[in-house]
Amino acid sequence: PHAPAVDRAEARKFTEDFHRETGAAAALEDRWQEIARQIDTTGTYVHTGAELTWGARVAWRNSARCIGRLYWNSLVVRDRREVHGTDDIAAECFQHLRATWRGGRIRPTITVFAPDAPGRRGPRIWNEQLIRYAGYVHPDGTLAGDGRNTGITTYATELGWHGRGGRFDVLPLIVDSPHEGVRWYPLPSDAVREVAIGHPEIPEVADLGLRWHAVPAISNMRLEIGGISYGAAPFNGWYLETEIGARNLVDADRYNVLPLLAHLMGLDMSSERTLWRDRALVELNRAVLHSFDAAGATITDHHVESERFLRHLRREEDAGRVCPADWSWIVPPVSGGLTPVYHRYYDEADLRPAFVLDEDGAR
Amino acid sequence: PHAPAVDRAEARKFTEDFHRETGAAAALEDRWQEIARQIDTTGTYVHTGAELTWGARVAWRNSARCIGRLYWNSLVVRDRREVHGTDDIAAECFQHLRATWRGGRIRPTITVFAPDAPGRRGPRIWNEQLIRYAGYVHPDGTLAGDGRNTGITTYATELGWHGRGGRFDVLPLIVDSPHEGVRWYPLPSDAVREVAIGHPEIPEVADLGLRWHAVPAISNMRLEIGGISYGAAPFNGWYLETEIGARNLVDADRYNVLPLLAHLMGLDMSSERTLWRDRALVELNRAVLHSFDAAGATITDHHVESERFLRHLRREEDAGRVCPADWSWIVPPVSGGLTPVYHRYYDEADLRPAFVLDEDGAR
Ligand code: HEM
Ligand code: HEM
Repeated sequence: PHAPAVDRAEARKFTEDFHRETGAAAALEDRWQEIARQIDTTGTYVHTGAELTWGARVAWRNSARCIGRLYWNSLVVRDRREVHGTDDIAAECFQHLRATWRGGRIRPTITVFAPDAPGRRGPRIWNEQLIRYAGYVHPDGTLAGDGRNTGITTYATELGWHGRGGRFDVLPLIVDSPHEGVRWYPLPSDAVREVAIGHPEIPEVADLGLRWHAVPAISNMRLEIGGISYGAAPFNGWYLETEIGARNLVDADRYNVLPLLAHLMGLDMSSERTLWRDRALVELNRAVLHSFDAAGATITDHHVESERFLRHLRREEDAGRVCPADWSWIVPPVSGGLTPVYHRYYDEADLRPAFVLDEDGAR
Repeated sequence: PHAPAVDRAEARKFTEDFHRETGAAAALEDRWQEIARQIDTTGTYVHTGAELTWGARVAWRNSARCIGRLYWNSLVVRDRREVHGTDDIAAECFQHLRATWRGGRIRPTITVFAPDAPGRRGPRIWNEQLIRYAGYVHPDGTLAGDGRNTGITTYATELGWHGRGGRFDVLPLIVDSPHEGVRWYPLPSDAVREVAIGHPEIPEVADLGLRWHAVPAISNMRLEIGGISYGAAPFNGWYLETEIGARNLVDADRYNVLPLLAHLMGLDMSSERTLWRDRALVELNRAVLHSFDAAGATITDHHVESERFLRHLRREEDAGRVCPADWSWIVPPVSGGLTPVYHRYYDEADLRPAFVLDEDGAR
């Protein structure tokens, strides 16, 4: 449970990279003396505000699975390393959600809480994202809500939360701190912006009662900078429409809405060969884009985002840097072959700083 | 230009695998004595008919990029190692195309010509596939035909072929043999089955004048079995609809038909965000499936083929074998996320026997 002492080589590498890239090269050896002394004395060291900000931004830049990295250098970093109590951590997470929203003009943001240290682990957030919908398995085996979240729903229930058994119940935030243990907090409604899904031409789509939260804020990845591990560092960008329109609402073990939608569209579902799934998929993605646009909530589409990613790649190359990318995550799950990101291979280097998932799942 | 002597370790490994898998284990050492003696004397050895058949089938089984491997064990192997003259090689290729057709019930088939040997290279076919459409770059920079094939079109023209400058002119077969050099042969019309593309509900699609050949027969990959390299070994299966409907007719540097189709469908093309490309893509794939079905020509769709591939994977696992697969080639370019092959990772072993491309291109 206790973190080991910081790896000096990682700390050194980070400090060198930081000073070189940010142009503070002259100050490198002074700063390194300080860091080395802190590591010798305490087994760890404390990042300056500038190091933390740059480290978090570069962790985003190094995220090989992320197509949205063009704006890595404008990530807003909220330094909350001094916040320790679970009440305060939850309150800061909710404040993060309010601050990133900006009336719909979502701004990529990260809130960094205290890191792990030798003899004292930092806080954790057990939710995969700050906002997620509950998934209930009924005694007869049927599912209500998001099948991806049945585990955490059971856990929240064991902690004392009472879900309403609906399709889109926002789960409570579950925060774990070394002093107070695990506590849960219902999300205040002004922190949870949601978009009801309708279709630009098929009014009946609104009757399906579909909705999704506007802000995707991943909260279960560790942020690793210079040998220091921040276990609670929720971050968000804005949605790419396929995440909602091709995975969250579509995967057979999640909302599985394509059969409903295809039925409503009057498609011939007698065989897969009629491509009814593919037709419904495109219309669902149109509905997601249309609904977010109508609600004034930032969202991007897979065509524009693929172009932006290639622009990012070129910029990184021009800066003399390797840009790692994971083909199977970068190529969107809708019309992959139509996007320019499909038609090339990528470097797969594993760089630091980085966001890491303790258990690496399949897609 | 001359092949080196056969690698004994590769020959041994193949011979062991063949005897173990085909149940002829008892005869292994006798056969190996024979092979070793042939290699000592001639620098190479001659596969038996059974070895050649098994080797070609396993080369298919080992093709990590091929989603269609469920039927690997029924590949028809035409042993034409004794055919040497370019006239006869061309005639055998045409006979291959006629034989695989079977009135539309296409049968996976390979024709194997003489291998390379020390001091004597085998024949080559310079076309990527036995049937391909010419691509002409006009003096003003515009393209007619298939942009993928402009290089070989220029080459054929230099050899004396006169293309008609059309959109779907079948290229001549270009055969290269050590004694006769490079010669070209127009394809006889009864060897080239083509399907005109129409749409089940939009009659105007037929007016676009699109067509495609029914048999995809790759002719530029070397077949490597037990250290022996067959440089001319054209093989075919049947089409997966996305190859035609999402790449050949769609890639911007090939037929680029989506704008035409979208226009004809009356889609709003004012922005990528209307997903007009995605909508036209699905309809083009429907048109391809519909047209092949109407013509009675075997074709598969990406939903069925993904299921079949996972069946193949399970069978291979049950047989205790590794099944290598390349995610980025297996996942179809249309609605990737809807297919079960998307939601897992694969083994990436590079096994022998194998089909190899002398230059490995990007997708
Ligand atoms: C600004 C808009 C952004 C867009 C459009 C975007 C898009 C995406 C998409 C589509 C994925 C794949 C998600 C999936 O398939 O499950 C992804 C993954 C990822 N993104 Fe971004 N992203 C954005 C911002 C950010 C930010 C601000 C960060 C961190 C500071 C970030 C870090 C990551 C990481 C670490 C992953 C991999 C997650 C995992 O392994 O599960 N992204 N992104
Ligand atoms: C029976 C029906 C078959 C289907 C539906 C099928 C399907 C496919 C598809 C969709 C691809 C990817 C093509 C691309 O994206 O360019 C592929 C590649 C490949 N297939 Fe198959 N295939 C079949 C039969 C065969 C046969 C009979 C062989 C060999 C005996 C074979 C060997 C290969 C190889 C070597 C590749 C990789 C080609 C390259 O690297 O460019 N396939 N197949």
